[in-house]
Amino acid sequence: MRKTPRPVAATEPDLGLDPELTTRILRGFIRSEVHRAGMAGVVIGLSGGLDSSVAAFLAVRALGPESVRGVVLPYRSSHPDSSAHAELVLGKLGIVGERLEITPVVEAFSALSRPGSRLRLGNAMARIRMILLYDRSAEIGALVLGTSNKTELLLGYGTLHGDLASAINPLGDLYKTQVRALAEHLGVPRAIREKAPSADLWPRQSDEAELGFTYETVDRLLALLVDARVSRRSAIAAGFAPRLVDDVIRRIVRSQFKRRLPLIAKLSTRSIGWDFRYPRDWKS
Amino acid sequence: MRKTPRPVAATEPDLGLDPELTTRILRGFIRSEVHRAGMAGVVIGLSGGLDSSVAAFLAVRALGPESVRGVVLPYRSSHPDSSAHAELVLGKLGIVGERLEITPVVEAFSALSRPGSRLRLGNAMARIRMILLYDRSAEIGALVLGTSNKTELLLGYGTLHGDLASAINPLGDLYKTQVRALAEHLGVPRAIREKAPSADLWPRQSDEAELGFTYETVDRLLALLVDARVSRRSAIAAGFAPRLVDDVIRRIVRSQFKRRLPLIAKLSTRSIGWDFRYPRDWKS
Repeated sequence: MRKTPRPVAATEPDLGLDPELTTRILRGFIRSEVHRAGMAGVVIGLSGGLDSSVAAFLAVRALGPESVRGVVLPYRSSHPDSSAHAELVLGKLGIVGERLEITPVVEAFSALSRPGSRLRLGNAMARIRMILLYDRSAEIGALVLGTSNKTELLLGYGTLHGDLASAINPLGDLYKTQVRALAEHLGVPRAIREKAPSADLWPRQSDEAELGFTYETVDRLLALLVDARVSRRSAIAAGFAPRLVDDVIRRIVRSQFKRRLPLIAKLSTRSIGWDFRYPRDWKS
Repeated sequence: MRKTPRPVAATEPDLGLDPELTTRILRGFIRSEVHRAGMAGVVIGLSGGLDSSVAAFLAVRALGPESVRGVVLPYRSSHPDSSAHAELVLGKLGIVGERLEITPVVEAFSALSRPGSRLRLGNAMARIRMILLYDRSAEIGALVLGTSNKTELLLGYGTLHGDLASAINPLGDLYKTQVRALAEHLGVPRAIREKAPSADLWPRQSDEAELGFTYETVDRLLALLVDARVSRRSAIAAGFAPRLVDDVIRRIVRSQFKRRLPLIAKLSTRSIGWDFRYPRDWKS
């Protein structure tokens, strides 16, 4: 007599996407949200990486080049390719861009704060970039366009109030490997599509080395755990290493605070975040 | 024959509170959330104003003085009373405090950005303070304690990713006038309780002058509109000026984006913010 049933063989969700349909949906999303907010366009921080490049290409498809502002925000130690690739995107899309070197602001912050880990400095850098993007968005009456993908959001691989901050995010429901497929369809330059993903917060940083797994592997596992809702046990039975499954589940749970608003202590009959809830683009 | 029924006389919600019960609830809230997050304590930005002072008093009641870190973040043009009152709170509570003058960081930001309105500079200042608070919280393993009250949150009278950013907020369900009542009970110094509320982002700034109404009036109106869910028409029938009612409704609706996370375009079966939703302090 068996006490515990054998896990059911889980079917892996198909991560393939119809790039033309996806583009059409996201173009409509960007266009309607900018319109509903009564804004003139969007501001995007261009890192030279895959995600912000794809977001910029989608924004231009949605709004036309004149309504998209690209901001390149290099730091002293940023890889020279990062700026070069960001400028490649500006040129290819024909959008107005500007370059703001964040080094003096980071240095003023560092002089004030005590020396900390490079992770803490990286978080401060991401947040300084946020301030500049939000300031530009206020200047020109635009929305800050988010560029975080579903893999990063689920793993908590991003800075709260930094790169995770935006008004609308067209990429938040696409895994990294899906963003890559979309990038090819949209005509994002090959140099951007084929380099190793990196937050470029310090020299030689690499997403996959830092995380300890490849996007290809983790995207399949995340789709199984999150989209197909399979258990830890079934994910292991499907062939994923127990250590990887546990690490990924731990990362998802521990980073939940980055995917929620501040928790407000409930005291009244109608409290923000509890029972006072409207859509972000609520019209009374 | 009357086409439209007369509005029902609305009963104004009672904004009185039991300060001892409220303190007990909020003490438990802070204690349990810090504990659930596995953190050592809280970090609070002390402005010298009413809200952050009350939050600090509550935090010390919840955790003891050794687990509360106060950070005073003056700018060149801050009113001298602001720092003095923040230091009064540090002394009265016996908590470790530090003073970080944000002027050099603000100046580095201003040199990089183009000159903008004082509102844009004020938002950047609030966000620079956020960066320093989050950096300190990472250094000592603490949560950033929020200090925004329900009046500010509903009116959108605060900076997104600035003073509105926190992990947990004990004051978010208390109107400003209720925070004032609680302050008296907790023993917050009279000088702090009796001065005119101000974000102190530029000289002579005053909340009530800027908003165009008093907290006493708007809190009663907000309680009617939000807590008692009465219509615009009933609020006017209850004696509030139509212009004020319209202004307040417009402020609530227009600031909804500050009370929501970035909107993610839904593409898959399970999307963050749509159908992938867990509490902030989720344990798997």
